[in-house]
Amino acid sequence: MIKKAVTVVGAGTIGLSWTSLFLSHGHSVTLTDIREDLPAIWQRHQEALKPTLDSLGLHEQGQLKLTTSLKEAVQQADIVQENGPENLSFKQQLYADMERYAPEHTLFFSSSSTLPASEISQLMNDASRVAIGHPFNPPLIMPLVEVVPGSSTSEETIDQAMQFYASLGKQPQLIKKEIFGFVANRLQFALLREAMHLANEGVVTMAEMDEIVKDSIGLRWAVTGPMLGMHLGGGEGGAGAFMKHLGPTMEKSWAHQGQLVLDEKTQANLRQLAEQSYGTSTLTELAQKRDKGQLGILKLRST
Amino acid sequence: MIKKAVTVVGAGTIGLSWTSLFLSHGHSVTLTDIREDLPAIWQRHQEALKPTLDSLGLHEQGQLKLTTSLKEAVQQADIVQENGPENLSFKQQLYADMERYAPEHTLFFSSSSTLPASEISQLMNDASRVAIGHPFNPPLIMPLVEVVPGSSTSEETIDQAMQFYASLGKQPQLIKKEIFGFVANRLQFALLREAMHLANEGVVTMAEMDEIVKDSIGLRWAVTGPMLGMHLGGGEGGAGAFMKHLGPTMEKSWAHQGQLVLDEKTQANLRQLAEQSYGTSTLTELAQKRDKGQLGILKLRST
Repeated sequence: MIKKAVTVVGAGTIGLSWTSLFLSHGHSVTLTDIREDLPAIWQRHQEALKPTLDSLGLHEQGQLKLTTSLKEAVQQADIVQENGPENLSFKQQLYADMERYAPEHTLFFSSSSTLPASEISQLMNDASRVAIGHPFNPPLIMPLVEVVPGSSTSEETIDQAMQFYASLGKQPQLIKKEIFGFVANRLQFALLREAMHLANEGVVTMAEMDEIVKDSIGLRWAVTGPMLGMHLGGGEGGAGAFMKHLGPTMEKSWAHQGQLVLDEKTQANLRQLAEQSYGTSTLTELAQKRDKGQLGILKLRST
Repeated sequence: MIKKAVTVVGAGTIGLSWTSLFLSHGHSVTLTDIREDLPAIWQRHQEALKPTLDSLGLHEQGQLKLTTSLKEAVQQADIVQENGPENLSFKQQLYADMERYAPEHTLFFSSSSTLPASEISQLMNDASRVAIGHPFNPPLIMPLVEVVPGSSTSEETIDQAMQFYASLGKQPQLIKKEIFGFVANRLQFALLREAMHLANEGVVTMAEMDEIVKDSIGLRWAVTGPMLGMHLGGGEGGAGAFMKHLGPTMEKSWAHQGQLVLDEKTQANLRQLAEQSYGTSTLTELAQKRDKGQLGILKLRST
């Protein structure tokens, strides 16, 4: 693919990970953030990331420019990947500003996990060049990017978004409706609610719950996903047989589901349970083990 | 571990898979079912299973006996793994019968996914030897066994169940409360409801949904499970920071969740969607690919 001028807006965890991904594919990247210590932020990120890049066999080959000026950052951009705060009025103003500073061909992709393209683009003159490009964190490692067009997004922008993310080795998926939370997080949060409920009730510890999932649905869904898992769970009758035989059990299970609310008391209890399950390891150790395991499965899939 | 006399009651998919697992660990197995064509059922199972056993590096070394007589099947059993229909009064009578025929030391483990040990053992004189040993299908491949004691189950029985399943290379997990659906299925069904809802609404196809999950939460949860995934998703603040920052988004997502009901119209639509996504491959091909992928991840984990 032709090397592009890619601008990353926002140097939080996700913006930094995108920056490394874009650089490792040879794009010229401009990273912008209003924080004055941007060079130090970038340097710390690079040091922490080095083992991951090495294990991915990647190195940052593109040119990187850091700037605190949004105008300077976008004025030659082919593509903007925006990672600002999840605040609608902030983002609306940001997109209007970017449109004013950027060339006419610039495409604007937002990492937003909750705000739809139709809304963040409302103060723009031309919203046809805006789409959601929502990664699963961290984008350097996780394959999924949910591409969610707004009501004004052009077919051309959608095609370019899908091609751009695929050229980075990602697995973009086009989401056909602008629903709240898109798909991956809605599914994630549906399961997390019940998982937090069962942990909160003391049915199993958090570490035991992790083992239960790793040894059943986690293992399965890493291979088939939930719908093919269901289709094959029905035996010779497929998904139809699964629903027919397990439908009443599923409906009873849904009726029994916890209606967990994340009030302060519940959060405090869950924090304590997390400390009990994971407190003996550092977050860095646990994250490295997670990344190593995930990369192992990705490598296995590609063989 | 000392070789035992293990009786498998019920020659459905799960009972047959247990039988192969027990045999491959050298136990003497008696398989019983009221179906007169039991020898033919067993032979078809063995033929279909051969590639899987080969890829697991297992072979059936224990002695197998087939009988349609429950009395004959359990009268010398050390352990019974019961896989009868999910019908409470049927199971209650079955356990009373098995207690009458079996020696005093026999332990009774049920594969039931919905009926608790406290209820299925109600017609027995001594319910201390009964526990749920619920596998994730198929037990030959999937590591999880949920061990769920009833109110009368003895500590000795629980210990023996945990040890027995571990000796088979399984990962038994003790569930501390007799909740409906236990843990793995409650979590599975919570996600499946939202997945079926989004497919039913046409947000993505079933095949696209599978790719979304495989490339995000499936990949992650195969490695960390959901609770450690959440803990590490919170960055330096752990699970507490995750809940604090994403709590409002999660609660909004829960409010948006579909309240899918599996009525005939919904089931018909979902059957059609499954056909559209998977109809070009046979179930056998898809199942072999699933099993190969799962075994690959299990092998990766053990290295």
